[in-house]
Amino acid sequence: MRRQITGFSNPTIKRLKSLREKKYRKREGHFLAEGLRILTEALDAGKTPKLLVVVEDTQLHPLAQKIEEATVASGGEVIETSEAIIAKLSGKSNPQSIIGIYEDHATALADIDRTASNIWLVAQSLRDPGNLGTILRTGDAVGAGGLILVDDCVDPFSVEAVRASMGAIFTQSVTSTSWGDFLEWLRRGDGQLIGTSLNTDADYQAIRYQAPTFLLVGNEAQGLPAEYEQECDALVKMPMMGKADSLNAAVATAVMAYEVLNQARK
Amino acid sequence: MRRQITGFSNPTIKRLKSLREKKYRKREGHFLAEGLRILTEALDAGKTPKLLVVVEDTQLHPLAQKIEEATVASGGEVIETSEAIIAKLSGKSNPQSIIGIYEDHATALADIDRTASNIWLVAQSLRDPGNLGTILRTGDAVGAGGLILVDDCVDPFSVEAVRASMGAIFTQSVTSTSWGDFLEWLRRGDGQLIGTSLNTDADYQAIRYQAPTFLLVGNEAQGLPAEYEQECDALVKMPMMGKADSLNAAVATAVMAYEVLNQARK
Repeated sequence: MRRQITGFSNPTIKRLKSLREKKYRKREGHFLAEGLRILTEALDAGKTPKLLVVVEDTQLHPLAQKIEEATVASGGEVIETSEAIIAKLSGKSNPQSIIGIYEDHATALADIDRTASNIWLVAQSLRDPGNLGTILRTGDAVGAGGLILVDDCVDPFSVEAVRASMGAIFTQSVTSTSWGDFLEWLRRGDGQLIGTSLNTDADYQAIRYQAPTFLLVGNEAQGLPAEYEQECDALVKMPMMGKADSLNAAVATAVMAYEVLNQARK
Repeated sequence: MRRQITGFSNPTIKRLKSLREKKYRKREGHFLAEGLRILTEALDAGKTPKLLVVVEDTQLHPLAQKIEEATVASGGEVIETSEAIIAKLSGKSNPQSIIGIYEDHATALADIDRTASNIWLVAQSLRDPGNLGTILRTGDAVGAGGLILVDDCVDPFSVEAVRASMGAIFTQSVTSTSWGDFLEWLRRGDGQLIGTSLNTDADYQAIRYQAPTFLLVGNEAQGLPAEYEQECDALVKMPMMGKADSLNAAVATAVMAYEVLNQARK
């Protein structure tokens, strides 16, 4: 059974809106995802929303119907409301007509099975939610085991990061940790730590990567701290033929990750 | 000599603000760039601002001093104003303290020298300014000849695109054209047109790219129209090991462009 909400001041609508802010996401352990494509990826990954919001008085897309059925079957709640309220929730001029609230699902460092994949992506102090989401999307594409966020990164469950991930937030494991804890965990098992850096002449194609490879990318503006670079098994860089000295962080991660994948599939 | 502006309602401040909108950029033929890093890239590329805005009563960074000197030497105007006004202009909570207004510099299709580079990037109906700027930045990195924008793409001179380009807007040529005009121009000379597509089984590493290679990437949501794909000399795709079927447009362009570069440098 759907519940109908007609007013902006309804407590559920207020709660939905609050999930755009990190502090409320942390408190609740829930986050927002928008749009049929991302919610379908979630369903395919076995994730159903605790709360689903759809537009009233419209015929749902067959995929949206499946999501609604799965939500009900798993004990979630379905709300229907006006386009105007959804637009307000979404904050976009061209809002998505379906929104889900999901439990966040961060993976503890101790629960990572590093043998599950040949490639792991590691980002340090990443600031841009679009970059973070794009790195998750790339991680899914190259079959990475997951994304490990070191130090003070932007929230992977922010609306912008979830949107940029195009659903990979539901298929990739996400772990937040400190540099010290990450390094201690890494050195307790197999794993080659590769840093992308300007402070090296080593070409990224001159190295034979060994599984599991942990690809470490630094903050968008500063890159990796020098003391982090010293802990890497190797530093590499992509050829830069122009005036600029660096690539966008999500682009650098993808070019590196495809090189590791390409070596493995040869 | 600097001119001091103290009021929000000053016509020059209003004009600066108006350049955040495409319609005023088109009318004036000027665009805004913000931040020392990007303005330094501009200077290195031989571009000086028509108008430079700096914060009053502060010691300029040596690089900013160089930009100010070059602005004056080339007949441009320098304005100093308060941090509050710059913050208002920038629309960011943590504004850059230096802003330049530059002449836009689109390159006509007829003026492109395709022999100038082995790689050209072509984007069709690209919607996201961050993607467009990131593709420019990648183009600089791989030594591309420039970016050709086909059909209705987002404005490359928007503040967001300029920011994401990290200065590559000043080093890469940018051309806006229609699909018909592009194709006619392309077929008048050498050039291999490679489309990235889901509608092929051809692996992007299985093809030997021939210079000049024109890498064509489609709209973020729709990809390339079928009739555009038919005009390509080859369609290729990157391996997708996960649940998702596509990469971010800027990421896909970068992975492709580095493959073309890597083949050329072997």
